[in-house]
Amino acid sequence: MSEGEKKEVGERHPAQEGDPLAIDYIFHPRSVAVVGPSPQFGFGAMGTSFVIAIQYMGFEGGLYPVNPTYENLLGLKCYPSLLDIPGPVDHVIFSIPVRAVLDVVDDCVAKGVKSMHFFTAGFSETGEEEGAELERQVVQRARQGGIRVIGPNCIGIYCPAAKISFGPGTPRAPGPVAFMSQSGGNAADLLTSAAPRGIRFSKIISYGNAADLNEGDFLEYLTEDPDTEIIAAYVEGVRDGRRFFRAMRRASARKPVIVLKGGRTESGGRAVFSHTASLAGSLAVFKALVRQVGAVEVDSMDELVDMLLVFRFLEQPPAGRGVGIVGGGGGFSVFAADEVDEAGLKAPLLSQRVQEELRRFTPVAGSSVRNPVDTLAIMEPTKLTDTLCLVASDEAVDVLLAHTGFGWGPGRVATAMGLDLDGLMEAVVDVLARAREAAKKPIVLVVATPPLLEATDYSLRFLERCWRRGFPVFPSIPRAAKAIARMVAWREMREDSPR
Amino acid sequence: MSEGEKKEVGERHPAQEGDPLAIDYIFHPRSVAVVGPSPQFGFGAMGTSFVIAIQYMGFEGGLYPVNPTYENLLGLKCYPSLLDIPGPVDHVIFSIPVRAVLDVVDDCVAKGVKSMHFFTAGFSETGEEEGAELERQVVQRARQGGIRVIGPNCIGIYCPAAKISFGPGTPRAPGPVAFMSQSGGNAADLLTSAAPRGIRFSKIISYGNAADLNEGDFLEYLTEDPDTEIIAAYVEGVRDGRRFFRAMRRASARKPVIVLKGGRTESGGRAVFSHTASLAGSLAVFKALVRQVGAVEVDSMDELVDMLLVFRFLEQPPAGRGVGIVGGGGGFSVFAADEVDEAGLKAPLLSQRVQEELRRFTPVAGSSVRNPVDTLAIMEPTKLTDTLCLVASDEAVDVLLAHTGFGWGPGRVATAMGLDLDGLMEAVVDVLARAREAAKKPIVLVVATPPLLEATDYSLRFLERCWRRGFPVFPSIPRAAKAIARMVAWREMREDSPR
Repeated sequence: MSEGEKKEVGERHPAQEGDPLAIDYIFHPRSVAVVGPSPQFGFGAMGTSFVIAIQYMGFEGGLYPVNPTYENLLGLKCYPSLLDIPGPVDHVIFSIPVRAVLDVVDDCVAKGVKSMHFFTAGFSETGEEEGAELERQVVQRARQGGIRVIGPNCIGIYCPAAKISFGPGTPRAPGPVAFMSQSGGNAADLLTSAAPRGIRFSKIISYGNAADLNEGDFLEYLTEDPDTEIIAAYVEGVRDGRRFFRAMRRASARKPVIVLKGGRTESGGRAVFSHTASLAGSLAVFKALVRQVGAVEVDSMDELVDMLLVFRFLEQPPAGRGVGIVGGGGGFSVFAADEVDEAGLKAPLLSQRVQEELRRFTPVAGSSVRNPVDTLAIMEPTKLTDTLCLVASDEAVDVLLAHTGFGWGPGRVATAMGLDLDGLMEAVVDVLARAREAAKKPIVLVVATPPLLEATDYSLRFLERCWRRGFPVFPSIPRAAKAIARMVAWREMREDSPR
Repeated sequence: MSEGEKKEVGERHPAQEGDPLAIDYIFHPRSVAVVGPSPQFGFGAMGTSFVIAIQYMGFEGGLYPVNPTYENLLGLKCYPSLLDIPGPVDHVIFSIPVRAVLDVVDDCVAKGVKSMHFFTAGFSETGEEEGAELERQVVQRARQGGIRVIGPNCIGIYCPAAKISFGPGTPRAPGPVAFMSQSGGNAADLLTSAAPRGIRFSKIISYGNAADLNEGDFLEYLTEDPDTEIIAAYVEGVRDGRRFFRAMRRASARKPVIVLKGGRTESGGRAVFSHTASLAGSLAVFKALVRQVGAVEVDSMDELVDMLLVFRFLEQPPAGRGVGIVGGGGGFSVFAADEVDEAGLKAPLLSQRVQEELRRFTPVAGSSVRNPVDTLAIMEPTKLTDTLCLVASDEAVDVLLAHTGFGWGPGRVATAMGLDLDGLMEAVVDVLARAREAAKKPIVLVVATPPLLEATDYSLRFLERCWRRGFPVFPSIPRAAKAIARMVAWREMREDSPR
């Protein structure tokens, strides 16, 4: 790593007191050591997983596995200890038994390391004094050595611009969404479920017990981070509630902020404590505060992904709650109407004018023109344009929900008939894009993918075409409807109480 | 088709008055004609889809595409009309414009056809007198000709034992579950979502407008059908409510019956009418009746699949509501506890004895031993056996919920490390099977599959191993918990009111 690059990091984010961006360097290490990887399947494989993950991203700095038992790992030289690594080491990932950490922390201090991430757990989250004391010692020694700590008990950082990652095979392309997650599992899950739907990230931070850097630090950082346009957060408990909500108010004034709180019920609260040593606190109070500061509050990881999708891909929140539903297959449309209602939206009866015009060209097979519009137009793209535009032209319709896709029937049929499936997909997405332009109303897509390999393949090919053209795609009607309803409620709330 | 086979069908199910099995022949046609297929992508492709579907199943009888425009289709001779087909035709699938059906019905009568299935729609479900009148005429002519009608406005029949199907690429193996569905889309969706989880079917019947054969006929048939052990039904409205509930009471006394009603809200009711011309009726009354006759009532297609899974794979309903949750990844366990609570089950605090024994060998990394038991034991199969058996040994635990799988991390890591992934999967499933035997309590699995091609591949390979060993596998904790809770409630209800 050259001096020039070092200087550039320093210039962008001077490490001055009170500057939230001062911690930026932890996202841009010039070299990384992973302590504790092993070629055996088992716990040590988690250390190996970090090495694989960073290799896959194409990380250009030094990458050093540390384990005295092996000489090589994954084609890399394996070092007996941190102190044996020849060059400087900026960032160290701990994946070793908890009883061994203090010695390695001392090595980090001696080596001039800048940040440490502890995948290792067994600290304050155990609920036992021994673990809590160990955590305090780690932080104390780190502070004396000028090292920032991420975790312990977490999977650390994914920052594609810096080519570092916590999981093998994660997307290399960066994007405008940031996710800070007290849970490592949720950090990884969000990435894997959001990526196929076109969400790309500036940073994902899993911060576990938050012994040193905590939710306040990260939220303040992301608020200022020029690479982040939308912020999502999963929190179990907060270290400093006053600071966190102040930071959330500031963040929400500048960017959409979506918050999921873990630990809803009695046993959930118990799991929160053992997970990251946070006290869950009152859920009702937390939720009320989230809304009060102008953030969006969600109840599950699925809802969190879904809100990212509408904020990322819809240019404007819909003007109202009227949904025009267009799809194929009657059973679907029966539930679509119920589900849209239950989400707090409406599927208004289409006007006589629209119904009559639709009736002219809608095939009678499985057709209804009232709303939902149950059409097989997906099989005939030219009719689909007209259908979407007509439904959008109804005054009572604020947003179009199109249920489509190639997961099941059309994909298999086209393939069995020897037709050009990619060409057909392209034609459908063209139609959708034209309809969106002509209709001047947002279009949200629903593509249900049955859990079959072939269907997943078709769906992913179709999904990528959709999100590259800026369409949010949901796996089900209820999920689409809920996300739209929340976005509308969020807009109304902000209009009512301007900040 | 030989006379011998014809006789066999006749012997099994004599077509006598009042015998519900008299309609068995409609599931076992010796030859099938599909009227209206086309090699063009578009509406005609739906007809082609039926031909592809039946070919794929390995149907051994005559299969005849009928369309005057083409000479060949999919390697089969294409006939100008039904009357041009040389041999007998038992079953005819209509996939033609509605205005053309009466002429073809007359051809069916002339040809001595036994059953007609109308994919064609545009009948009473349009809400217009013209369509309703056409439907009456079809049924009248059919009855005069001794032909039974399936539909109209539906996708008809899947019967793997007879090698007929309504969708391309459906499983060829039969199984003990039957599904009768007023909606064709739901019939296809259930098949595609249940199949990868090990559900195989005796029959799936999509019956649409139920103009001739209706929900009562099919339910009475399935009650007597020796190939059917579990019955699922999706109904929008019923033609003869008294008969249907009487039939459901009889069916529920002999087999688990799971019922989903479409048309919950005002706009859902509207969609029901346009979909299959049924009046939705009062949902509350319907639900109460379903429970009263001893059937299981569900609220969505997902719940319906999930109930099939517990009835198919759990030998006994759990003895109570205590769930021992074992899984990896703390964020997961936080929600698991909440979700189990919200489903009406309990995640009891494990006894001191069990906690202490677990603590001896549970790796501290990401560990909790209270319940949920957050363990990385999935990476070390030997520890997983001990963990499961210990948790099961707790008196407060009635059922184990194990969150596992190879969708994301372990699959990718093992593959990147060049390990034998299939061998690792086999080891985990062996462990689960041994634990189930030792623990003498049911084990329910949760495998979350992120929507990636590679993850779907890993998951499906793992899922197949699981269900072949008799494990029900759910895609999420809430879905597993809800299904377990419903099964327990169903057992309690039956114990309270013996029939």
